[in-house]
This record gives sequence, structure tokens and C-alpha cells, in this order.
Amino acid sequence: MKFSPLVDELIKSLQCLPGVGPRSAQRMTFQLLERDRVSGHKLGEALTKAMADVGHCNRCRTFTEEPLCPVCANPKRGESGQVCVVESPADVLAIETSGQYDGRYFVLMGHLSPLDGLGPDEIGLDKLEALIREEAPKELILATNPTVEGEATAQYIADMCKGRGVRVSRIAHGVPVGGELEYVDGTTLALSLSGRRDL
Amino acid sequence: MKFSPLVDELIKSLQCLPGVGPRSAQRMTFQLLERDRVSGHKLGEALTKAMADVGHCNRCRTFTEEPLCPVCANPKRGESGQVCVVESPADVLAIETSGQYDGRYFVLMGHLSPLDGLGPDEIGLDKLEALIREEAPKELILATNPTVEGEATAQYIADMCKGRGVRVSRIAHGVPVGGELEYVDGTTLALSLSGRRDL
Repeated sequence: MKFSPLVDELIKSLQCLPGVGPRSAQRMTFQLLERDRVSGHKLGEALTKAMADVGHCNRCRTFTEEPLCPVCANPKRGESGQVCVVESPADVLAIETSGQYDGRYFVLMGHLSPLDGLGPDEIGLDKLEALIREEAPKELILATNPTVEGEATAQYIADMCKGRGVRVSRIAHGVPVGGELEYVDGTTLALSLSGRRDL
Repeated sequence: MKFSPLVDELIKSLQCLPGVGPRSAQRMTFQLLERDRVSGHKLGEALTKAMADVGHCNRCRTFTEEPLCPVCANPKRGESGQVCVVESPADVLAIETSGQYDGRYFVLMGHLSPLDGLGPDEIGLDKLEALIREEAPKELILATNPTVEGEATAQYIADMCKGRGVRVSRIAHGVPVGGELEYVDGTTLALSLSGRRDL
């Protein structure tokens, strides 16, 4: 025997969460059943609602249950004429946390990966093209991840924007603040040298 | 801004799970929204159902949504006349996994802890007393945790059973299999010496 059906079902379902295996799922189940049914119930409702209602922002494709996400709905964020292109909603939060950016975003929800069947349309580049045509932003800041796929995606978008009168920039690559040169990999060091600036 | 209300709510709710902080909750939320809405929906339903319907077994107090848990409902498990007293449903699973026990259980759902307001009635000792009177088991195996509270609880139950004609035993304490003597603490070593058996 294991446990009763409902308890077993909950332990199994919890394992769909990343980083949760059978032992943690069991611990979570007992914790909720023994000590915190109210939170467990709330979590159940939040999950059901979010899975059913959360869609994508009509303008920037990030997650939201409204037609427009809070950033796109804020007219002040459109004043700078900058659009930052990122791979995922988590990247939006990371950039927002830096507090140094007051433009808008465009979320690809992935990167170009032809082998996985992710072409330009799957990551919404048709939508980005329409956005450039309609909004005529001043600058497109490409903030895709510094991986092979991220770089390829950035290059593809840069090529796509040629001759459209929009400035296209890529975020700087180099040595992270607080790191030690000794432990930085060669490619990053090479990029930080080639991207050096006059003082 | 953070995310939209439903997404924020889900990230916050996920943090009621043990071992889940803001970063993991965010990662879980995006993983479910991006790649696995079906599992997310299932999890939501499993949670809501389990929180509402799962109660305690009428006989052994473990978690179940039926009047009796699978072990208590199985007449074969009553044949040995043994009742193993454990602190939590997870302990039941641990003992079941060993495959060496075919009696029934009694789950205290905690241990005696007067400072936290957990007296004999809160851990169901009135129910255990009634069970001993009605079922007249041959043996009570006390398998509470080898902690101060667990030992005190075991002692209390042993005292309670005196003169009732039921054999009361305590699981053995000693050096765990696969461990090295060098790294075993002094108390455990002392117990393993005092509990030595003739070969």
C-alpha cells in the first residue's frame, strides 16, 4: 500500500513542479495536510485560476490575464521609445529589478531553435515586425541570453530590422561586477576586452 | 511593478510549500505557465480536493478520505495482533517500505509537547486507550522518533499500558547499517552498547 488515493494523487501531482521529487512532494503534502490546509486551499485556487485565465499581453507577449500587461498599460513607459527584447518574463523582472530601464519590453517566450521547431513565427517575430511598423520605436535593445541560441536570435532580429530606421543595440557582455578575473571564462574575457571603453 | 495579479498571487501562494522561496516559486510558476498548464491544472484540482476531503482514519488516525485507511481496512493486517505506534503518516510509509511489518498502526500525529499545548488527548492517547480496550492487541511497538519528545511520549504510553496485559516494546536504537562507528555520536554508541545482543 501507499497512502489513500487522494493523498497519492496529490503527491504525484506535486512532482510536476521543477525541482520536486517524490520525497519533497511527500513532505509538502504532509506539511499542508497537517499544518496549513488554508494555504493549501489557496494555492489550489491560485493554480486553477492562473492556469485557466493567464494569457499573453497583446503587445509584448509577457504573461498577464488582462489584454495589456502593467508595463504596456503604463503610458509613461512608452515615452522613451525604447523596446527591450528578452527571452522570458523572468528576464523582464530581472531588468525591472535593476531599476535602470524605463522603456517597454517585447518577450519572445523562447529563442530561435530550428531543431525544436521554433522558427521566427513561434517566437513572435511577425508580431515584433508589426510593432516596429506601427509604433516606430527609436531603439531596440536586444537582451536575449548570451548563449549560442540567444546570440543567433539577436543577430536574426538585427538583420530583420535593417533599413527600417530603428537603432538596434545589444546589451554589453563582459566581466560581471563582483567577480574575479581569475575565475571568468576565456570567451567572456575576450568579449570584455573587445568591448572595452575609453575612460 | 511585479507581474500581473494572478501571476503574483500564484508566486506568493507557492511559497507556502516547505523549501520553496521567492525564486523557486517564480521558476515553478513560469515552468507551469509556459510548458505544462495541464499538470498545473491537475495539481490545482488535486490540492483543492485533498485539502477539502482528506481526514483521519477512524481507527489509526492516519490521513485518508475514507472512514478507514487501506491498512486498517485490510483484515489480514489485524491477524498478528501487533500495533505499531508512530508519530506521523510519513513514518508509516517508512516502515511499510522496510517490508518487515504486517501488523497495524496507530499514528499520533505529533508527540507529547506540553509547552506547545500538545497533551495526551491532542495526540490521541484517549483513542489509543479505547483501541487497547476494544481490540486487545497482543503487542504495542513504540516507534516514535529517537528524540527527547519521542522518548518521553514512548515512556508515557508504556506507563499508560501497565497492567493491561499488552506487551509493550520499543524499537531498537543503535548504529545504523552502512554507517561508520567513527562518525556515530556518543549517545547512539552508548545505546548500541547497552542494547547489545548475544550471538
